[in-house]
Amino acid sequence: MSTTFTRGPVADIFSSYLVAVSLSAASELGILDGLREQGSYSFDAAEAGGLDRTVVRQLLATLSWAEIVEVADDKAVVGPRFDEAYAARGYFYWMVRGCGELFSVAPGVARTDDRVGDFYTRDMRAVAVGSRLIGDTHVEPHFTKLLAELDYKVICDLGCGSGQRVMAAATARPGVRGVGVDIAPAAVELAAESVAEAGLADRISIVTGDVRNLAPRELFADVDLITCVFLGHDFWPKATCVAGLRQLRAAFPAARRLLLCDVVRSERVPGPETQIFTLGFELIHALMGVYIPTRQEWYEAFAESGWEIVGESHFAAPPGGVLFELRPADGQE
Amino acid sequence: MSTTFTRGPVADIFSSYLVAVSLSAASELGILDGLREQGSYSFDAAEAGGLDRTVVRQLLATLSWAEIVEVADDKAVVGPRFDEAYAARGYFYWMVRGCGELFSVAPGVARTDDRVGDFYTRDMRAVAVGSRLIGDTHVEPHFTKLLAELDYKVICDLGCGSGQRVMAAATARPGVRGVGVDIAPAAVELAAESVAEAGLADRISIVTGDVRNLAPRELFADVDLITCVFLGHDFWPKATCVAGLRQLRAAFPAARRLLLCDVVRSERVPGPETQIFTLGFELIHALMGVYIPTRQEWYEAFAESGWEIVGESHFAAPPGGVLFELRPADGQE
Repeated sequence: MSTTFTRGPVADIFSSYLVAVSLSAASELGILDGLREQGSYSFDAAEAGGLDRTVVRQLLATLSWAEIVEVADDKAVVGPRFDEAYAARGYFYWMVRGCGELFSVAPGVARTDDRVGDFYTRDMRAVAVGSRLIGDTHVEPHFTKLLAELDYKVICDLGCGSGQRVMAAATARPGVRGVGVDIAPAAVELAAESVAEAGLADRISIVTGDVRNLAPRELFADVDLITCVFLGHDFWPKATCVAGLRQLRAAFPAARRLLLCDVVRSERVPGPETQIFTLGFELIHALMGVYIPTRQEWYEAFAESGWEIVGESHFAAPPGGVLFELRPADGQE
Repeated sequence: MSTTFTRGPVADIFSSYLVAVSLSAASELGILDGLREQGSYSFDAAEAGGLDRTVVRQLLATLSWAEIVEVADDKAVVGPRFDEAYAARGYFYWMVRGCGELFSVAPGVARTDDRVGDFYTRDMRAVAVGSRLIGDTHVEPHFTKLLAELDYKVICDLGCGSGQRVMAAATARPGVRGVGVDIAPAAVELAAESVAEAGLADRISIVTGDVRNLAPRELFADVDLITCVFLGHDFWPKATCVAGLRQLRAAFPAARRLLLCDVVRSERVPGPETQIFTLGFELIHALMGVYIPTRQEWYEAFAESGWEIVGESHFAAPPGGVLFELRPADGQE
């Protein structure tokens, strides 16, 4: 048996897994922010702050393999890949802390017979935090610009996650109210905490709900703008998507715009052009049994559910990210 | 904010994490063995065998990114990196299925205050299976050769894992009896099942025990050869290691050889020369709070505990693997 596998591309994939793990951990532990702000991170300070020195040292040694940091005796300093890694930290946090447990037990959910009931778990708090970081670089700045151009009084964010988007939209102009809806108790809790901390509890409500099947309620009656970010694929397969999108029209009778932003299925074969996120997004949804539609499939669902496209934007990050700007097909401007 | 992070080395680290996940899953699901035996793997056959077609397809699409397979409409075929990946599958299985949950929650065990009691879990059955595959390429063939040269009647394998080693050693020559000791109930169960299936229950006993603190017992009285593979670091730190190794002399009064094989701590800074396993082995033990000694530190522990080195071998796989051949310092040949 040759030992060529101990070095080279396959061995580097092994080491890369651990870099991903360490990036995720360093993000949550504040190590990346410390490096970003100071340019260096002291092991003494980490220890004084309650962290285990050996763990911190080994996380940073692992990151040094990928030239994200350089490690000296008593500290780490930023390396040539630090800025890239920092910008991408949300993707790693989403993947490792949010989805890592499901990824590690993947063979346990691959058998058809075992794919019933609640057959998987994810850390939805980490998914929400990671998704927010993922949105921060391109999607949210675009939303901010778009919201400044739109006229709205009550915004509802479907799948509100950490609540940051609805908070930003409600505070962007005076008198606007907001509603956040999420199915995950951990996300609802996180969002409600954030709203309360920001002193916005009188203007923003966070409620638990399944956005695929929303009934009309008083809180929704005046909503004139609906946003739905990184969630639309949960409406699928096609038949339930069409039904769910129709139901949004009933649940939000005053809605004039639906801004639906999601990552669409890649139609390219994996290879050197594959960007960050794609393989993780597609594998986790395959494991969960959630269908990811292509852009074309979205067009069909909109047409069949009474929503008309008035604009479409493509994002560089996350790769595959598309924002559909929709209005009721029989609506007035 | 630039988008350079969506392509390039950091983005490839993201994709590599998913390749590691997919290799581990494909190993457990028999997909790698199927590819090895047939050169191709049919999605129809996977489905007929009870696997979810979308999951299988996405696992293989992920592996195709790393050129381990190539995916066509209805099947996957081996790619240029397949042989390497197959040889390395045990490392990935150990890492992802065995340790993946702990890696994903790493920041949750980094705070000193949280590192008390049973603060982590691993899948010890997967750790045992992965370790066996890791040992299969170099360590076990070396053991087979060494055991053929040594004279022994009763062998005891400390940390027996899946039980393969003690089974091979006991069946290698007539009349030899074997004992396997492991602390993990899942490993003991797996080993006992394997022994029973092989019809060796009359010659081999598997018992639960903490090898760091073994008392003499009747089953150990005639053991003349002790093996201890991929476990020695659990004896550390130094003081407990010296005490534990001394105790082995008392627990096994007839022992003439102790073959201790373990991965020693790398004394090189991570970089392009880093081989498979090293970063994973060192990070998981940092997270668990288990010290990994260097080769020099082992020499000191042997000297202080009454064991004399009569031979030493280094393995190409796992990298850092060393086999110390020891005898009681005052023993007779």
